Formats: sequence, structure tokens, C-alpha cells
Amino acid sequence: MIAHTESFEIITRGKGTYEITDVVQRIVRSTGVKNGLATVFIQHTSASLIIFENADPTARTDLEEYFERLVPENTNYFVHTAEGADDSTSHIRMVLTRTSESVPVAHGRLQLGTWQGIFVFEHRRSSHRRRIVVSVLGTKE
Amino acid sequence: MIAHTESFEIITRGKGTYEITDVVQRIVRSTGVKNGLATVFIQHTSASLIIFENADPTARTDLEEYFERLVPENTNYFVHTAEGADDSTSHIRMVLTRTSESVPVAHGRLQLGTWQGIFVFEHRRSSHRRRIVVSVLGTKE
Amino acid sequence: MIAHTESFEIITRGKGTYEITDVVQRIVRSTGVKNGLATVFIQHTSASLIIFENADPTARTDLEEYFERLVPENTNYFVHTAEGADDSTSHIRMVLTRTSESVPVAHGRLQLGTWQGIFVFEHRRSSHRRRIVVSVLGTKE
Repeated sequence: MIAHTESFEIITRGKGTYEITDVVQRIVRSTGVKNGLATVFIQHTSASLIIFENADPTARTDLEEYFERLVPENTNYFVHTAEGADDSTSHIRMVLTRTSESVPVAHGRLQLGTWQGIFVFEHRRSSHRRRIVVSVLGTKE
Repeated sequence: MIAHTESFEIITRGKGTYEITDVVQRIVRSTGVKNGLATVFIQHTSASLIIFENADPTARTDLEEYFERLVPENTNYFVHTAEGADDSTSHIRMVLTRTSESVPVAHGRLQLGTWQGIFVFEHRRSSHRRRIVVSVLGTKE
Repeated sequence: MIAHTESFEIITRGKGTYEITDVVQRIVRSTGVKNGLATVFIQHTSASLIIFENADPTARTDLEEYFERLVPENTNYFVHTAEGADDSTSHIRMVLTRTSESVPVAHGRLQLGTWQGIFVFEHRRSSHRRRIVVSVLGTKE
């Protein structure tokens, strides 16, 4: 039984989605776990994680535009705006997506479907350093 | 310590919710795990998983109607529509729900509440074959 | 390898967010697990879990107001209203947030970021007793 915890950082450059599948897969491989579970966790409340289609980038264009309208920056009743118009919107967009994503591991590989990738969803306008923790639990057989 | 990974398929028949609680419980029981965690994962980006009330079906009627309106097919700014009006809507409805659900296991059973069931939420109009992976981690005591 | 499952209850006093980070951290510490994964699960379909900013309470004010408007009680097409105007809204708000949250454990501590807390999000107007199950998986080194 292996219980491995490791973290890494990425730099985001404003709102949008940033794929991290390869980094997570490399961490899983380095543990030697063949069967188990990988859990990816982001240590922030204004960015989140999603598993999303990673083939056609227009799917992400529509997603990002949809979230701009679902939680608009010009919402007049928001009071938590000390850090700007993208303050409360960031927290709410995070709540509507995920802080963690869990993916089963078999044969030493993340059991993602053909079109699935793991993405950081940045909700802030400006560049941010985001820390992601990966937990890998499982066995070497 | 047991780390078991197993998958199964279901055929969906258009948009809606399809309960899979019994299949997941059977897989948990077959592993012999008494204490641990079961994680259910769907390998698709146009269908998702939810844990939802499984007693009164009208709760699901309202949910499905709500999602039709929250992410409408006639959204005029969507560009990712190669596979039809239910293309981008499916991905976005998936992001607003889950790709995986995790449920603690005790006494060899999923620790679901009285009214909780695990469902596949199909976001496509047409019938699809959907693959679900179940990871069971835990001990035999 | 430890696989520990434990539950506790909280009493909610109407709609809102209730922090449970300390209770979860205490359970993790009591297991002696140094590296692994903690999964928090709520056994209800009209309350949910979120990881959210726990510093400035106005962030939660905006979140709660946003959900009142995203899934309004006066939605005229809802049919699942046997228990009142907050019946279907509770289930849908639950689906848009989480039934479980998973947090990696390292050095015996939940790997939450500086501003992250774990909250029960109560969607019902009246007071409720809510049961939360915590699964801790991992190793003592």
C-alpha cells in the first residue's frame, strides 16, 4: 500500500482553462502505484478544477463565455468586491465547479476517457501562482 | 489493504437520469472491503454523475427541466455545435455536475443516506453507451 | 494502512453555510494517518458540502444571495413542492455543489490552502440535523 502526497505549481495568465493532465499522470507513474486512486486538489478559492473535453478548443471557449454570463462581474448586489469585480465571481465560479477531482488508476495509468483532460479553471483576471496537491493511494500490483 | 478497479457500461436512451446505485454496491460487496472509500467515475464529457434523491421521481423531473433552462440549447453565442445543439450544452451541464462521486464504505456497505442514489446524468438527446469505472480502496476489517 | 470511517452530526438553523473544518481535522488527527486522503460526505439531498473562503464572511453572503437567485423558490414549473417552496430548490442547489469533498492529508494535516474551509451548505429554511461521514485512508508514515 502506497500513500503518496506531492504538490506542484502553475502560473496562470488570466481567466481561462489550463491543462495539467500530463503533470498528474507523471506523478502517478513515479509512485509505482498500479491500482488505486489519484485525487487532485487545488489550494485556492478563486480558481478551481474541472475534467473537460480536451480535443476541440471551442468547447472551452463556450464554457468560459458561459461562466462569464452565469456569474457576471457587473452583479449589482455583490458586496465582497474589495479585490475588484472578479472577487465574488471567482469564489462562486469555484463553488460551481470543483476544488478536487478524483480519477481511478489501473495498470499504472489514470483511467480517463478518450476526450477527458484535467484542467485548472482560473477565475481571476490577473496572473496567479496556483498550488495543486496530488494524492495517490493504491497498491503496486 | 485492497485496491480494486472495475468498470461497467450502461446504455442511456436520451437525456435524463439513470440510477446505478445497485451496480456500485454489488462491486463494493464483491471486493470484501469492510471499511474504505468507493469512487465512481464516468469516462465521458457529455454525461455526468450525481448523487440525488431517489424516492420521488418528480424531484428528477424538476432537475432535468431546470438544466434545460440553465444551459439552453438555443444559446446563440455557442460555437462548439459540430455535433448539434446538444454539444456544448452537454459539456457545460457536465461541468456543473460531477465526473466522479466518492462514498465512504463501512460494514461493507456504501454509506449513503436514506434518500440518496447514484445516477448517471445523460446530457445527449440520442442513445449512448457510457463506461463507468469504480475504484474501491480499503481494508477487510 | 489505515481505513477509518466515522460520522458526526450538526444542527443547522436555516439556510446558510456552517464551517466544519475543525471537526474534520480532529478526526484526521485521531486516526494517526500522516499521509493519505480525507473524504467528507453528507448523507442528505437537501444540504451539501463546499470548500470555500473562510476569512471574510461577505464572500459567503454573496454566495448565498447568488444561489437564492440562481435557483429561485418562486420557479413556476417546479412540481416537486410537497414539502414547500424550498423542496426542489434544495435538491437542485445540492446538485450544483457537492455531496462529498476530498482533501489530501500530509504530515497528519488536511492540505487546505490558507483561505479554505469546509462548510455544510444548508438549503432548507428550517432547522435540520445533518449527518456527515468522514473517511480517512492512508499510512502512519
